[in-house]
Amino acid sequence: MADETTTAPPDLAVDVTALTALLDGQHADIRRTVRELLPAYASVLEDAETMPRDEFRDRVRDVVLEIADTGAVAMGFPSEYGGGGDLGASIAAFETLAYGDLSVLVKVGVQFGLFGGAILQLGTDRHHDAYLSDLISGRLLGCFAMTETGHGSNVQALGTVATYHPETSEFVITTTTPDAGKDYIGNAARHARVGVVFAQLEVGGEGHGVHALVVPLRDEQGAVLPGVRIEDDGHKMGLNGVDNGRIWFDGVRVPREALLNRFADVTEDGTYTSDIESPGRRFFTMLGTLVQGRVSVGAAGVSAAKVALTIAVRYGLVRRQFDTGAEDGAEQRLLDYGLHQRRLLPRLARTYALHFAQQVLAADLHDVFSGITADEDARRLLESRAAGTKALSTWLATDVVQECREACGGAGYLSVNRFAALKADTDVFTTFEGDNHVLLQLVGKGLLTDYASDFSDLDQLGMVRFVAGLAVETVLERTRVHQLLEQIREVLPGGSDDWDTDSGLLDPDYHLAMFRFREEHRIGGAARRLKRGVDAGMNPGEVFSRVQDHVISAAHAHVERLVLESFVEKVAATEDGELKLVLNALCDLFALSVIEADAAWFMEHGRLSAQRSKAVTREVADLCRRLRPVAGELVDAFAVPVELLRSPDLLGPDA
Amino acid sequence: MADETTTAPPDLAVDVTALTALLDGQHADIRRTVRELLPAYASVLEDAETMPRDEFRDRVRDVVLEIADTGAVAMGFPSEYGGGGDLGASIAAFETLAYGDLSVLVKVGVQFGLFGGAILQLGTDRHHDAYLSDLISGRLLGCFAMTETGHGSNVQALGTVATYHPETSEFVITTTTPDAGKDYIGNAARHARVGVVFAQLEVGGEGHGVHALVVPLRDEQGAVLPGVRIEDDGHKMGLNGVDNGRIWFDGVRVPREALLNRFADVTEDGTYTSDIESPGRRFFTMLGTLVQGRVSVGAAGVSAAKVALTIAVRYGLVRRQFDTGAEDGAEQRLLDYGLHQRRLLPRLARTYALHFAQQVLAADLHDVFSGITADEDARRLLESRAAGTKALSTWLATDVVQECREACGGAGYLSVNRFAALKADTDVFTTFEGDNHVLLQLVGKGLLTDYASDFSDLDQLGMVRFVAGLAVETVLERTRVHQLLEQIREVLPGGSDDWDTDSGLLDPDYHLAMFRFREEHRIGGAARRLKRGVDAGMNPGEVFSRVQDHVISAAHAHVERLVLESFVEKVAATEDGELKLVLNALCDLFALSVIEADAAWFMEHGRLSAQRSKAVTREVADLCRRLRPVAGELVDAFAVPVELLRSPDLLGPDA
Repeated sequence: MADETTTAPPDLAVDVTALTALLDGQHADIRRTVRELLPAYASVLEDAETMPRDEFRDRVRDVVLEIADTGAVAMGFPSEYGGGGDLGASIAAFETLAYGDLSVLVKVGVQFGLFGGAILQLGTDRHHDAYLSDLISGRLLGCFAMTETGHGSNVQALGTVATYHPETSEFVITTTTPDAGKDYIGNAARHARVGVVFAQLEVGGEGHGVHALVVPLRDEQGAVLPGVRIEDDGHKMGLNGVDNGRIWFDGVRVPREALLNRFADVTEDGTYTSDIESPGRRFFTMLGTLVQGRVSVGAAGVSAAKVALTIAVRYGLVRRQFDTGAEDGAEQRLLDYGLHQRRLLPRLARTYALHFAQQVLAADLHDVFSGITADEDARRLLESRAAGTKALSTWLATDVVQECREACGGAGYLSVNRFAALKADTDVFTTFEGDNHVLLQLVGKGLLTDYASDFSDLDQLGMVRFVAGLAVETVLERTRVHQLLEQIREVLPGGSDDWDTDSGLLDPDYHLAMFRFREEHRIGGAARRLKRGVDAGMNPGEVFSRVQDHVISAAHAHVERLVLESFVEKVAATEDGELKLVLNALCDLFALSVIEADAAWFMEHGRLSAQRSKAVTREVADLCRRLRPVAGELVDAFAVPVELLRSPDLLGPDA
Repeated sequence: MADETTTAPPDLAVDVTALTALLDGQHADIRRTVRELLPAYASVLEDAETMPRDEFRDRVRDVVLEIADTGAVAMGFPSEYGGGGDLGASIAAFETLAYGDLSVLVKVGVQFGLFGGAILQLGTDRHHDAYLSDLISGRLLGCFAMTETGHGSNVQALGTVATYHPETSEFVITTTTPDAGKDYIGNAARHARVGVVFAQLEVGGEGHGVHALVVPLRDEQGAVLPGVRIEDDGHKMGLNGVDNGRIWFDGVRVPREALLNRFADVTEDGTYTSDIESPGRRFFTMLGTLVQGRVSVGAAGVSAAKVALTIAVRYGLVRRQFDTGAEDGAEQRLLDYGLHQRRLLPRLARTYALHFAQQVLAADLHDVFSGITADEDARRLLESRAAGTKALSTWLATDVVQECREACGGAGYLSVNRFAALKADTDVFTTFEGDNHVLLQLVGKGLLTDYASDFSDLDQLGMVRFVAGLAVETVLERTRVHQLLEQIREVLPGGSDDWDTDSGLLDPDYHLAMFRFREEHRIGGAARRLKRGVDAGMNPGEVFSRVQDHVISAAHAHVERLVLESFVEKVAATEDGELKLVLNALCDLFALSVIEADAAWFMEHGRLSAQRSKAVTREVADLCRRLRPVAGELVDAFAVPVELLRSPDLLGPDA
């Protein structure tokens, strides 16, 4: 207990308005606009509980159309079609919209992100002219029909086929097997009039891989068109305001011009042309243009975590758990308990960390897609970063929402207190736009192969063979572990080997060195295990199966390092003063709680002594106590409109 | 990779029928009866998604009444009133019922466990004669009105008051403050005609603490009686077939005989009598009789985990994630991937562990309440064990259901595949019958004070002062750490200090020694920190706040040790043969994955070297691979009726 009475660092204070401005960053305007827009739709949160399913779906559609009217959700489209011409603002708007009902958010994502994004990114002028104005205004609702029942993560193997018939200049679209039915398609069960359908393109008896076509699904009255069969996916865990469904095609004919032909085309006489020679490369180039979806889902995950933390922290500040009657315990609030701080505050710090990581990512996205950064490497890194950050942000949401709900006791179980919907609606975030484990596997593959192949190409055996084919020296060079070890030593007092000291625990260089060491060591280790397995004659599938979790943990460490860097850079860029102090403390708490969570690994690899590991744990508790007095301000700075918090049981009727 | 090619242990095989019989144990008959009963009610699972709330509540009530007719849910009541006279069988029936819809289960729990249990345990013959037959048959539906809006965990401070009026021989029941409204009371919003109401008893101007009375709430037509006000808690995250509500009393008069007077009574002229002098002790004696509820909720949590694992493991065995087209990868199923095994199989092992722990607990409960074991110490240990096991079993449910849902991808999100309801319905298990953290705190308090005070009395400051008042030697003696260290050495090869070796990793004595060391070290450490804090002049509230997580982690380690002991003893008691081999592997996997999860702590405390820690991780992976070929049989042995699995998308239409 001696260390609990050492000299105290300065008290923290927070100017909420200033912190909100800092969090809002360069897109403060659109964020404010959406925050002002949302309270009018607070009643949707209640409708989600009370309305019959189809009625609620229509209600959500109506809200989406009303929001579309304000222009707030079309920021990413070219201004000549009625958009805002600012992709970064588009992400900021979507992120903020996630404070409200998440069926509304996902319906917006389906219409403007997936459907609209595919038309914009995969189509050419003829498609833009034909569809963009109408889809931006909401006059034309559409869906994005990629996933199939039997092909979730491996979309390159889709079973829907589009065959070109030169005699009529048409494509004929057919669902070839039961596994090839489109599934979980948002907007399909009720509202979409057209779909962007991904299918294997066959021209003149030759397959050219997966391409996207615009296919009408319903007429103006909403009746399903001939040759199309649609089935409702039915009740879901959450997001029941979104009408997910299954679609089957039986010889549906669309004109040649329906092909979204930015990257490949078919001439009238049936000649297939593309500037990208490899069918795989072509497909992954197409997929790459849709990276915005992953950035958006991750951003939404962070917003959901913010809503949950706002409620739980505020509750912890008003609720007295035990009115002990004792003179010194009577005023104790829930958040005064060490354990309660432990449950909420490291999660609050991680939410801040991922907020800044998402901001960096959104800026990268903006730069790449607005042509500010144009090279191929930047694109690959963006795709990798988007995939990895999406995984961490959506797992954050699942974890934070659950812990906050438990931290509010039985009241947290009542729907009026928001956790029910937050939990149910965000649950699928870990799966959609790519299963998180699969995404991290992609990131890991990129790290191991130096992005030698296309990003989304999850060819595990190819990866194993690639790594196995490297020279021993190359594999060893993959890891800069020794250099990094030096870096860790340098940031320790006197560059010494004294791992037992407490000093330097709050030095960001120490945190970064630890994160980098972990990342590089895992990448190197995974590479060596892959190579060794193949060299020993094991078959590549078996080798991959055994090393898979190592690959994924390397990717996880990589992304977490990027997250920490974003946070450290943000702190460094903040002017000296109160805000910098508090951000610093949050950043320390984030970094140390990650090190604490992985302490076994660091000890196994000689980078943390038993004594220092205990010191990390004490420091985490100290940081929690230090942040406790400003915890309320730290969640208020998220600026979740009070109308959206609901929670009369938790926050009082005047919440 | 060298260790991945060492001599393989024998292949495992499972006779499903034999394993089911072993899991069923001595109450196989009632388990089978309930399993045969459940398929008829499989449609309730669908009704939960489609029916309007009140209609679904009535449907659930009707199902509960039908099941009551079979006698399967009244096993715990005396046979003279129509019960089965077998408490152990009652728990087994409840546990099995948890394979089905959980609103039905919880409604059964409210009626027969909470309401019926209170009448049985707190009442005397006059109450038994008046109510038991009717409540067992379901002719009289009731509720258990303890929790208040402002008093969740601290029920000793309830604000409802029952004042005795000798002139009319009546109690007058009043809700004194807004915080004192009864809340989250199951059966209250719609179906209960009477309630067992907990209130502060006042007789002749003197308070005697919390007692329970039977209070009519509705007339035969269901109209709420004068003086009673009831409000619906509204929509909840799950369990919407249970009508939770709030109740306020405004001078409601009940006759003197309404007092459940097993432990205290009031004479007609207004004299309060009780064999238990201390009001606190009296209240906690009453609470102690209700321990069955915690045993039941824990059992239900394990059952929910079994359902989730059955679906996810079966899915992992049929689903091919990537049809790579490569000669050696084409047949790879999801569960062949190392990471997928890692996600599901340690959780399967833990589910087995908690199954056996719940069986031991249910047997203890049966023995104590049937008078087979009668002493006070056995009661206290039972209460502690029930509280702790409830926490671990319900967290197991939350964790397993979530991981299984994610392991089934997007399909896991569709309600038809069961995870939606499993997740939403079980979520509150961590809170009800006592918040898990509060329960572990109670367990910790018992460990630290050698059960010197009443079990449920969560007087934190009293605990701090108790421990602080112990002599230094006593505090040090609390921990047998040094002895345990010797034990660990003894089970290592040659009793050596060679922590680096892999040997002994699969020795149950090694596992037990590690678990015991962790427990004792944490108890001792918490005691020393409490004492040191007070000795240093810190106020007890602050001391407690800082040591709280240590106390809780000690309790957690304690309960986990009990769980491991149950499992090890079960394995030891099993005849040599196939079943013993497979149970042994599961037990090893459970023990080693717990050690792995706490590896940082073991390393910090010098009980695990870096090398051995890595060996533990490798062994966990090896055990997963070894169990993979029998994973399907291991879940089939849970014998969840196939009609209840639903999941046509995951398991195929013939599931």
